[in-house]
Amino acid sequence: MLTEKLSQFIVETDFEDLPEPVVERAKHHILDCLGVILAGSKHPLARQMLNHFQSLGGARQAGIIGCAFKTSAPQAAFVNATMGHVLDFDDDSDTMVSHPTVTILPAVLALGEKGSSGKDLLAAYVLGLEVCARIASQPGFLPGHYEGGWHTTSTLGVLNSVAGSAKILGLDVNQVRSAFGIAASEVSGLRINFGSMMKPVHAGSASAKGVSSALLAKAGITANPDIFECSKGFYDLYGHLSTVDEAILTDSLGKDFDIVTPGMNIKKYPCCYYTHAAIDALFFLTKKYHLSPDDVRKIQCGISSIAFDVLKYDAPANGTEAKFSMPYCMARALLDHQVLIEDFGDERVNNADVRKWMNIVDKIVEPFMDEPGKSLGVCLQVTTMDGQTHTHEIIKALGGAENPLPWDAVVSKFKTCASRVLDEKDSSKIVSDIEHLEEVAHIGDILDTLSKGS
Amino acid sequence: MLTEKLSQFIVETDFEDLPEPVVERAKHHILDCLGVILAGSKHPLARQMLNHFQSLGGARQAGIIGCAFKTSAPQAAFVNATMGHVLDFDDDSDTMVSHPTVTILPAVLALGEKGSSGKDLLAAYVLGLEVCARIASQPGFLPGHYEGGWHTTSTLGVLNSVAGSAKILGLDVNQVRSAFGIAASEVSGLRINFGSMMKPVHAGSASAKGVSSALLAKAGITANPDIFECSKGFYDLYGHLSTVDEAILTDSLGKDFDIVTPGMNIKKYPCCYYTHAAIDALFFLTKKYHLSPDDVRKIQCGISSIAFDVLKYDAPANGTEAKFSMPYCMARALLDHQVLIEDFGDERVNNADVRKWMNIVDKIVEPFMDEPGKSLGVCLQVTTMDGQTHTHEIIKALGGAENPLPWDAVVSKFKTCASRVLDEKDSSKIVSDIEHLEEVAHIGDILDTLSKGS
Repeated sequence: MLTEKLSQFIVETDFEDLPEPVVERAKHHILDCLGVILAGSKHPLARQMLNHFQSLGGARQAGIIGCAFKTSAPQAAFVNATMGHVLDFDDDSDTMVSHPTVTILPAVLALGEKGSSGKDLLAAYVLGLEVCARIASQPGFLPGHYEGGWHTTSTLGVLNSVAGSAKILGLDVNQVRSAFGIAASEVSGLRINFGSMMKPVHAGSASAKGVSSALLAKAGITANPDIFECSKGFYDLYGHLSTVDEAILTDSLGKDFDIVTPGMNIKKYPCCYYTHAAIDALFFLTKKYHLSPDDVRKIQCGISSIAFDVLKYDAPANGTEAKFSMPYCMARALLDHQVLIEDFGDERVNNADVRKWMNIVDKIVEPFMDEPGKSLGVCLQVTTMDGQTHTHEIIKALGGAENPLPWDAVVSKFKTCASRVLDEKDSSKIVSDIEHLEEVAHIGDILDTLSKGS
Repeated sequence: MLTEKLSQFIVETDFEDLPEPVVERAKHHILDCLGVILAGSKHPLARQMLNHFQSLGGARQAGIIGCAFKTSAPQAAFVNATMGHVLDFDDDSDTMVSHPTVTILPAVLALGEKGSSGKDLLAAYVLGLEVCARIASQPGFLPGHYEGGWHTTSTLGVLNSVAGSAKILGLDVNQVRSAFGIAASEVSGLRINFGSMMKPVHAGSASAKGVSSALLAKAGITANPDIFECSKGFYDLYGHLSTVDEAILTDSLGKDFDIVTPGMNIKKYPCCYYTHAAIDALFFLTKKYHLSPDDVRKIQCGISSIAFDVLKYDAPANGTEAKFSMPYCMARALLDHQVLIEDFGDERVNNADVRKWMNIVDKIVEPFMDEPGKSLGVCLQVTTMDGQTHTHEIIKALGGAENPLPWDAVVSKFKTCASRVLDEKDSSKIVSDIEHLEEVAHIGDILDTLSKGS
C-alpha cells in the first residue's frame, strides 16, 4: 500500500492544503535555487551541455535559464539542473543526504512553464520534496545507500523529480504509481564519478529522468504499481532492504513537512558548509575589533573531527579543492571581507598573495564540537600582532536547518548570483515574483525573465 | 587498466580486423533484429512511444523503423529498441543472460545513419557486443546480477550501446573511458517491472542512454576513467564484487569473439525458447506420418525441469502468458503447421477451438533433459487415434547457439516479420543489403528503406 499511499498523497494534496510555514520555506529554497542556476549558467559546463542539447533539438516546450534557448521539457530540466549544481552552491538536506531542490525545481518548472500557476508550482515542489524525504527516511536505507557508493542527489533526485512532475502534470493515482515504477527503473548515479564533470551532470540526468518517467506514465506506459514495497523493488536493489516499514513513511503525511522540520540548509558561501561558521565568526571578530589583515598574526579554528576530515586541502591546487580548504576560505574572508563564487576560480586560488595569508590559519579538532548537533560549529581564536587573543564561538552555522537564512539574506545571495546574468530590474522582479508566488498566474512569465541572457 | 584496455580495443579495432565468421554471424543477428523491429513497429506500444517522442520533437538525425518520422539520435534509438523487444522475438545471449542486439543495433544505426558505411556498422555492432560479453563474463557477476533483480537487457544494454556508439562516433581512448564512466552512472532497470510495458521500454531506455553517454563524452564531458576496476565502481554497485580479474576480461581480445563462440540464440518462433524444440519435433512427426489434428489423441512433451518451471501457463489468459504455455504453442503448431506473431494476440489465444486442442497436450519432466546443455531439448511422444505411438527427440533446439539458424531461415523469419510493413521488393532489398553489408557505402540508404511505412 506504500506506493499507493504516497501516490494518493500527491494526487489529493493541493496548494490550499499546505501549512503557511511550508509555503514560506519553499519560497526561500525556490529563490535560492533560481539564483544558483543563474550563477551556474555562466560556468563553462553550462555551455557544453547547451551545445549538446542544441544539437539534439527538441520542441520548444521549456526555457533554459540564463539563455534564450527553449527545448523539450526533459532536456530543459537536464540543462537547468546541471547548471544549478555545477557550483555546489545549491541547498541540501540532512534527511536525504543530498541536494534536493536542484532536481525537483527544474523538473516542475519545465513541465509547468506552459500552463501552471505559482500555486501549482509550490504544491508540486513541496510534494516532490516531501515524498522523497519520506522515501529517504526508511530505517536502514540511509546513510548506507550513500556510503555504499550511490550519489543520492542523482538516485533520490529521480524520485523527487518524478513526484513533483507527476503532480504538476495532474496524473491520477494509477498513473503516479506507474510513474514511480518507471522512475525506479531509471535510478542511477555512481559517487565514484565525483571529481569529474559528472557530479552536476548527475543532477541534470536525474531531473530529466523524473520528467520523462512522469510523461511516459501520462502517455499510458505502465510499470509495477508497488515499487516501494515489492520484493526486489527500489529498496531491495538500492538499499539492500528486504522489508519496508510503511508506517514510518506515511505517518502524519500532510501534517509534518520535512522542509520545516527538520528543514534544509541554504549555503551563504559557495564553499563547503564546514567552513561557514568559521567565516562568520571571523567576520564577527574583525568587525568588532576593527581588525585589518595586517593586524592578525594567527587564526585558529577549533572544529569537529568530521569537519577536520572533510576540509582536507590545506594547500588547495585548484578551485574545487579550495572549496574544502579552511586556510583558503579564511584567508579570503580576512582579505576581502566576503567569499564569492569567483573566489573559487583556479587562477584566484593560486594567487601568491592569498597563499601568504593561508599560512596563518590553523585548524584543530575541538572535542566539544563532536557532541551531537554541533559538527558544523566553530570555536575561533584570532591572535593579533600586539599579542591579544579574541575568541568567538558559533554552534549553529547560519543557513543550516536550525538557524535558517532569513529572507533578506536569501534575497541578497540571489541578487549576487543573478547579477552575473540579469540586470537589477529583472533580478528584483524575480525576487518579487517568488515572494508572492501564490499570486503568479503563469509561471511562464517568470521563465521569460529568467531566460534573458546570452 | 581494464577500462583503458577495453577502450583501446574499441578504438583500435576496425572492420578489417574482424575474422570472417564473426562478420557472417553479425549479419545474421543484424538482419534478424531489423525484422523483429519491423514487426514490433505494428505493436500498440510502438504507437504510444512514437506519440511520446513526437511530442518532444528533436532534430531530424535518425529514422524510426517502419515509420517516416525522424528524431534525435538518442530518441530514435529509444523507439527502435523498444519496438525490437516488444514481441520478445529478438536474439539473446547465454553469456550475457540478456537480449543484446536490440540495444546495440538501434544505437549504432541512429548514430551512423548520417555518415557511416556498412563496414563501420559491422565493426561498431561487433565491438559493442564483444566488450559487453567480456564485461558480463567477470567471474561472480552473473547470474547473481540478474537473479538479484536487475534486468540485464537494460543494465548491460547501456554498456553495449555505449561501446558501439563510442566506436561509430570515432571517440579517442580517453573519450571512450569517459563514455564508460558516464554510462555506468546511467545503468538501471528493475526486473520486478517485468509483466508491465516496461520490459521493452527498458531496452529503449538502455539503448538511448548508451547513445547519450557517448555523445556527452564527445562533447567533452569527463567521468571516472577506470569505472570497471575502481572501488565502488560498476562491479561493486551492480554485482557486489570488490575485486576484478582483468585477465579474464581481456585475454585474447580481438581473437575470440563471443558472437561465434559460444554464439547467441535466434528465435524461430515468437514464444519462449523452451517451446521451440517441441514445436519442431511436432512438425517433424506430423510431416513424417502425415498426421492431421484429428489423427492425434495425445501429445506428451518430456522437457527439463527448468523448462517445466518456466512454461507455467497451461491455461494462458492472454497473449503474453501464451508465449510461456506449452499446450497453447503445441495446439497452435498442430492446427496451423506454423507459429506466428499474430498467434499471440489476446483474442486468438482465447479462441475456443484452440482451447480444445490444448487439452490433449501434457508436459512432464524428462530427467535426461536436466543433464548439462540439454535444458532446451524435448522428447516428444504423439499418440494417434488408432493407438500408435510416435516419438522424436531434439536435444539442441534450432536457433540456439549450438545449432544456429542457417541464413535462409533467418531470411525467412525476416521476410515474415517485414511483411507487416514492407512490400516484397523493399524486404528483398534489405536482405540483400545486409547480406552484402560490407559493400554498403551509406547505411542511411538502408534506413530510408526501413523507414517506409505508416
